[in-house]
Amino acid sequence: MTEDVFFSELFERLPPTPDQVVIPPGDDCAGLRFGEDQILLLAVDQVVGGCHYEVGDAAVTPEAVGRKLLARNLSDIAAMGGTPRYCLVSLAAPPARGSTWLRGVLDGVASMAAEWSMHMIGGDVASTPNDEVGSLTVVGMVEPAKVCMRRGAGPGDCMVATGRFGDAVRTGHHLTFRPRIDQGRWLAGTGLVRAMIDISDGFLLDANRLAVASNVSLSLDANRIPRRLPDTTLASALTEGEDYELLAAVSAADLDAVLSQWPFPDTPLTPVGNCRAGSPGVFTSDGIELMEPGRAGYDHLSRI
Amino acid sequence: MTEDVFFSELFERLPPTPDQVVIPPGDDCAGLRFGEDQILLLAVDQVVGGCHYEVGDAAVTPEAVGRKLLARNLSDIAAMGGTPRYCLVSLAAPPARGSTWLRGVLDGVASMAAEWSMHMIGGDVASTPNDEVGSLTVVGMVEPAKVCMRRGAGPGDCMVATGRFGDAVRTGHHLTFRPRIDQGRWLAGTGLVRAMIDISDGFLLDANRLAVASNVSLSLDANRIPRRLPDTTLASALTEGEDYELLAAVSAADLDAVLSQWPFPDTPLTPVGNCRAGSPGVFTSDGIELMEPGRAGYDHLSRI
Repeated sequence: MTEDVFFSELFERLPPTPDQVVIPPGDDCAGLRFGEDQILLLAVDQVVGGCHYEVGDAAVTPEAVGRKLLARNLSDIAAMGGTPRYCLVSLAAPPARGSTWLRGVLDGVASMAAEWSMHMIGGDVASTPNDEVGSLTVVGMVEPAKVCMRRGAGPGDCMVATGRFGDAVRTGHHLTFRPRIDQGRWLAGTGLVRAMIDISDGFLLDANRLAVASNVSLSLDANRIPRRLPDTTLASALTEGEDYELLAAVSAADLDAVLSQWPFPDTPLTPVGNCRAGSPGVFTSDGIELMEPGRAGYDHLSRI
Repeated sequence: MTEDVFFSELFERLPPTPDQVVIPPGDDCAGLRFGEDQILLLAVDQVVGGCHYEVGDAAVTPEAVGRKLLARNLSDIAAMGGTPRYCLVSLAAPPARGSTWLRGVLDGVASMAAEWSMHMIGGDVASTPNDEVGSLTVVGMVEPAKVCMRRGAGPGDCMVATGRFGDAVRTGHHLTFRPRIDQGRWLAGTGLVRAMIDISDGFLLDANRLAVASNVSLSLDANRIPRRLPDTTLASALTEGEDYELLAAVSAADLDAVLSQWPFPDTPLTPVGNCRAGSPGVFTSDGIELMEPGRAGYDHLSRI
């Protein structure tokens, strides 16, 4: 069972959320309304030794672990067009790691938090028998008129993606990436973005999430997707994950304006496909489905 | 190094928090001000297999793990006089636990959340090589006029404690306790509580935290502290932890009013000592220090 199905089944069993929850769970962040002028964004994400990084790899400093723990949460704030404000961090590690390791991870969180003028407002540390697990809850803000969700794309909309894809682990990108907060804020600030998601679990998987949430058939121009290295394969760019880029939908009429005004010369913004009415999912331009909804697997990549 | 010292050193290194943070990290919850009429309370806490429960103990169902994960966070909301509203949950477990275990833990969180009219608004699941780690961030609300903090007790104040202490593991209390939300709300609602903390890490350790935060010398009437069982030792009541009760300071003039109006007949509210000017810490009535500040150890228990 995929994590998406797992959580969607869970949230369906729960009582309906109150009116204050203007963005229910299931998007990159949940959103709580405070007054007329702000939505509080909340999300949680983990970094696990042996899953998100190699335990014992000397290149993975505790500071890098902390940095990644915060950065992947910032990517979720970016996808809503939000500004990060606060975080709460819990760390669990075996006694052998000692307080030096814990302090290093928290210093990694704190130094990245300072870069974004964020503040750590809570923490907990615990001992495990064996493993290293960090969990971080991020709190951000966004104006109600600017917030972007996964739903909202419609037939005829064009999809644009920030940055480059693939080989995120081989290049170390997964530890050093700069979250697309500024790009997400800018896109949301145009008022022209109809839906947005962060691409962290693989291009296809996250594009499919946006397509399903928006109930559109996403026709992907897969060969236009920028790849991280000259020898990055299409499969890596589409499925490897850990890219932490943004995928946004804009109406066809607004596409040129968005591309021409894009103010981040170091970060490409690339049209990568468009939305059509039809079965929700991600398809090649000739209509071959690239991902079976509800599955983590990828099909028909050879047909691109 | 104790967790208190670890985090106080960390928070001292961080930039000062903005004005919106009306309760800085280091209390049971942090507090963010929203408008004139509410403070948002946030706290994070973990439950780790092999640390907070026995892995493989058939009596510890996944639902019980989830229940405890939320309940210990609710105790932190109770200590501020707050009402819990939302939570975000992350779970990490080895693949052998499977989705049934994860679902069981989340069902445990969800069923207790429903008891308190709370809503789960975010979640993440991940795989570990070996261990089971749950982390939960709780979000609550409290009126600014009612919020109770660890600081605020002064010389002459009387200390009152809810409930009974000791043998929390042996009796299963640590898995089944009902968080003192109603009692915390009532105490905060009297307007007579000058400081409050939850007692979860052991009576002495948490009493010492309140004494240090309030800069008072807490003279403990240790033999008045109610014990959970007839054969519960004083050492267990004072140091074992996992009680999840509340310790509050009220002025001597208000003590009788608070005790006589206490509306929870099933939960004792017991005067357990008083505050004096002097070295911050916890002392016997004849002035023997029971805990060395900054240490997790307990001294001189034999002198009580």
